[in-house]
Amino acid sequence: MADPAVKVTRHGYALADELFQVRGDDLHVGGLSVREIVSQLGSPAYIYDGAVMRRAYRRLAAVLDGFAAIYYSAKANPARGVIRLFIEEGAGVEIASLGEYHAAIAAGAKPEQILFAGPGKRHAELAAVIEGGIGEIHIEGLDEIARLRAIGRPVRASLRINPVPAVQVGAMRMGGKATAFGFDEEDLDAAIAAVAAVPNIELVGIHVYGGTQILDAAALIESWRHAITLAARVARTIGRPLATIDLGGGLGIPYYEGDRPLDLDAVAAAIPDLAASMRSEPLLAGARAVVEPGRFLAGPAGLYVSEINAVKTSRGVRFLVLEGGMNHHLAASGNLGQVIKRNYPVVAPAHMTATPDQPATVVGPLCTPLDTLARDTGLPALAAGDLVAVLQSGAYGLTASPGHFLSHPAPAEALVEDGRIERIAR
Amino acid sequence: MADPAVKVTRHGYALADELFQVRGDDLHVGGLSVREIVSQLGSPAYIYDGAVMRRAYRRLAAVLDGFAAIYYSAKANPARGVIRLFIEEGAGVEIASLGEYHAAIAAGAKPEQILFAGPGKRHAELAAVIEGGIGEIHIEGLDEIARLRAIGRPVRASLRINPVPAVQVGAMRMGGKATAFGFDEEDLDAAIAAVAAVPNIELVGIHVYGGTQILDAAALIESWRHAITLAARVARTIGRPLATIDLGGGLGIPYYEGDRPLDLDAVAAAIPDLAASMRSEPLLAGARAVVEPGRFLAGPAGLYVSEINAVKTSRGVRFLVLEGGMNHHLAASGNLGQVIKRNYPVVAPAHMTATPDQPATVVGPLCTPLDTLARDTGLPALAAGDLVAVLQSGAYGLTASPGHFLSHPAPAEALVEDGRIERIAR
Repeated sequence: MADPAVKVTRHGYALADELFQVRGDDLHVGGLSVREIVSQLGSPAYIYDGAVMRRAYRRLAAVLDGFAAIYYSAKANPARGVIRLFIEEGAGVEIASLGEYHAAIAAGAKPEQILFAGPGKRHAELAAVIEGGIGEIHIEGLDEIARLRAIGRPVRASLRINPVPAVQVGAMRMGGKATAFGFDEEDLDAAIAAVAAVPNIELVGIHVYGGTQILDAAALIESWRHAITLAARVARTIGRPLATIDLGGGLGIPYYEGDRPLDLDAVAAAIPDLAASMRSEPLLAGARAVVEPGRFLAGPAGLYVSEINAVKTSRGVRFLVLEGGMNHHLAASGNLGQVIKRNYPVVAPAHMTATPDQPATVVGPLCTPLDTLARDTGLPALAAGDLVAVLQSGAYGLTASPGHFLSHPAPAEALVEDGRIERIAR
Repeated sequence: MADPAVKVTRHGYALADELFQVRGDDLHVGGLSVREIVSQLGSPAYIYDGAVMRRAYRRLAAVLDGFAAIYYSAKANPARGVIRLFIEEGAGVEIASLGEYHAAIAAGAKPEQILFAGPGKRHAELAAVIEGGIGEIHIEGLDEIARLRAIGRPVRASLRINPVPAVQVGAMRMGGKATAFGFDEEDLDAAIAAVAAVPNIELVGIHVYGGTQILDAAALIESWRHAITLAARVARTIGRPLATIDLGGGLGIPYYEGDRPLDLDAVAAAIPDLAASMRSEPLLAGARAVVEPGRFLAGPAGLYVSEINAVKTSRGVRFLVLEGGMNHHLAASGNLGQVIKRNYPVVAPAHMTATPDQPATVVGPLCTPLDTLARDTGLPALAAGDLVAVLQSGAYGLTASPGHFLSHPAPAEALVEDGRIERIAR
C-alpha cells in the first residue's frame, strides 16, 4: 500500500501554463514543442526559453528603472548563449571565477561591464582579469587587498560587507552570521583603512549580499535599504562620493508547492523611497545601484527533460525511472542545500491535457535512493519512452550537478527562441 | 564570539596515523610527502594511495576467503588506475552504466569479470555490453526483461531482489521499503516466471542489496544470511542450481568522529556459518557468493588536498578558505545525502606535528555557505599557502561532485604507489 501521507501535487502544471505555452497535448518552449526539441537534441536535455529569460529581465528592469542596473550572475547558468542574451538586453555580468570571466568575454561582455566577486580569488585570477580589463573587483578580505597591492596595477574595487544582524524581516534574518564572505560590518573601518593604504586600488563602492532565494519583498527591500545606509557611512568615512552600491542578488523564484513568487509590485512601490534615500546623501547622489540576480533571470526559463526509461511499482509506490537524475540535476534531488526534500515542479510535456492524477515518484538511473527528483507528485499515466520535464531548472542546474557520477552521458543543452534551437557546448 | 557549542575535533589525525605514514611534519602517501606530491600536481588535488587500497582489498579477501568473490564497484571511483589496481588484486568489476563498462575494459577487466547492475539501463547500453561481452546482467525490472528479449542474444542474468522488511538489526532496517531497485521479494515468483519466458536469458543467480555505508557487522551478516535464504528459494523455484549470489556492497568506513569501523573480525567469525548454510542447500552447493564493495576498498586511500587561499576571522569564527570546495568534494560539504552536516576528517598534511588545537571552519571558494567542508574542527595555526587535506576521500569524491559549479579549474588526480605518481586523466 502507498503511504497514507502521500500527497499528490500538481503545481508544475500551473507554472507551465504561466511560463510557457500549451498547445494541444504539447508544452511549447521557445516556439517549439518540447517533444520536437527532444527529438532533435536527444534525451535527456536542458532546454532554455530565450523569450522567458528576456521577459524576466525586462520586467525587473522596469521595476528598477532609474534606480539600479542589472548584472547577470553568471554562476546561475554560465552557458554562453544565456550570458549573451542578458548582455543583449542590457545587463552587465557578475562573475565569481576566471572561468566565468572567460565565459562572459566569450559571450560578448565588455570588460568594464564585468564585476568580480567571490571569496578565495587566486592571485593568478586577479592578475588575469586586471590584465584583460574588469569593471570592478569586489574585495572579500585582507588577503585580496595584499594580492591587489602585489599586482600593482590600477583597479576599481568595492568592499564586500557582511552586515550586522540588525535586519530581521519575517522569518528571515539577513546577515549577522559569521561568514567567509566579505568584511564584517563591525570591521569596516579597518577594511577601509587597509584599502586606503594601497595606492593602486580605487575604492568606488560597496557590495552587500543579504541572502539567497528571497521570496519576501519586504526582506529584500530592507536589505537594500540597509546597504544604502552602509554606503553612506563608507562614503562619509572616505570623504568621497561612491560610484557603485551593489545590493546583491538573492531574488528568489517559486520552486515548491505553496511558494509565492516574489512580489515585484511591492518592490516597485518601494523603489522611489530607496532612490530618494540615495539621492539625499550628497556623496551617493551620483552613485549607481547594482542588482545581480541569476536564478531570478534564468531559473524559470529552463526545463530538464528526460525520457522515462522504466515504470515500475514497488510496495504501492509508482516509480518513473528517468534516463538522467541527480547526476544532471542535483538541486531537484534535494541535495543542494535543502534541509527537507521537496518537489521541484514536474509535468509530462507531451501529455499536457491528460489529468495529472496518477501518483508518481520520479527517480533517476543512479544506484542510490538519493536519486529522487520528485516524490509522490501527480503526473498522467505514462510509460517508458514518454517524457517528463522538471521546471524551474534554468539556474543551478547542469553546472551545479555531479555530471560524471556513475559515468552516464551528459545531457544535451540548448537555448530555444523563436523556433530556433541553439545548442550549447560546454 | 565563537558559538559556545563549538567543539573542536581532531579525529582526522588519528585516522591519518592509522592509514598513512607521518614522517616529521609531513604526511606521506604512497611513499611521498603530500607536500611533494602537490608540488608536482598543483593544488587542489585528489591523491590515492595504492598500497592502502591493496591493503583494504587483501584484508577483505582474507575475511571472505572460501566464501565470496570481491567485485569492485566502479561507481565509487571509476579512475582507470584504481579499477586496474583492484583487477590486479583479483577483483571483478561491478558497473552501473555503459561508461563504467568502458572504464572497466580500459582498465584491463575481462568481459566475464564484469557484472552490470543499476536501474534504468537503456536498450543501447544493454546491447553494447552484450555485444562486447559481460559476465552477468542484474535485472532490475520487467522493462529490462523485455529489452533483453528484444536484443535476443544469450545472456547470463541474475534477479535483483528488494527484500521484505523482516531484517531489523540494531538501529538499521534492511530492505522493506518501496524502491526503484530490483523486484520486491513478494513479487519474486512473477519475476522468475517472466525471465523463464525469455529463452535467451539464462537465470544464474540473485542480487540482494541491503544498504549503504553499513558499519554494523551484525546488520551486514544478517543481510547476507537473508540473501542466502532468498537464493535457496529461487533455486528451488526454478529447480536448478544457482551460480551466483550477489550479496551487495554496503561495507562502510568511518567518516565522522565517533564512527567505529566495521568489525571485520566479527564478519570473519560469521563466515563459516554463512558458508555452511550455502553448502547445506544442494542447489547452492556450487554457487559463488559475490560481495561488491566500492567505498570500503577505495575510500580510505584517498585524500583531497588544497592550498589555503585565505584565512579570515568573522565574528569569532576562523575560516580557512581553500582553493576548492564542494565543486570538487560534494560529499565532504554534507550535500550528498547527509541529513546533518558532520565533518569529514581533516588534517594539515605538512604540519603533522603541530598541535591541531586552533578552531577552524574549512570552506571552499564558492559564493555559498553550502561550500563548507568542515565546521569548527581543530587544525594547527595555518596561513594562506599552507595545505589542508580531507581524508576518507577516495570514494564518491571527484566524480560525485559538481565540478563545473562556478567554473573553477578541475583538481589534479593521481594514484601514488611506491613513490611513483600516476596522473589520472578523466
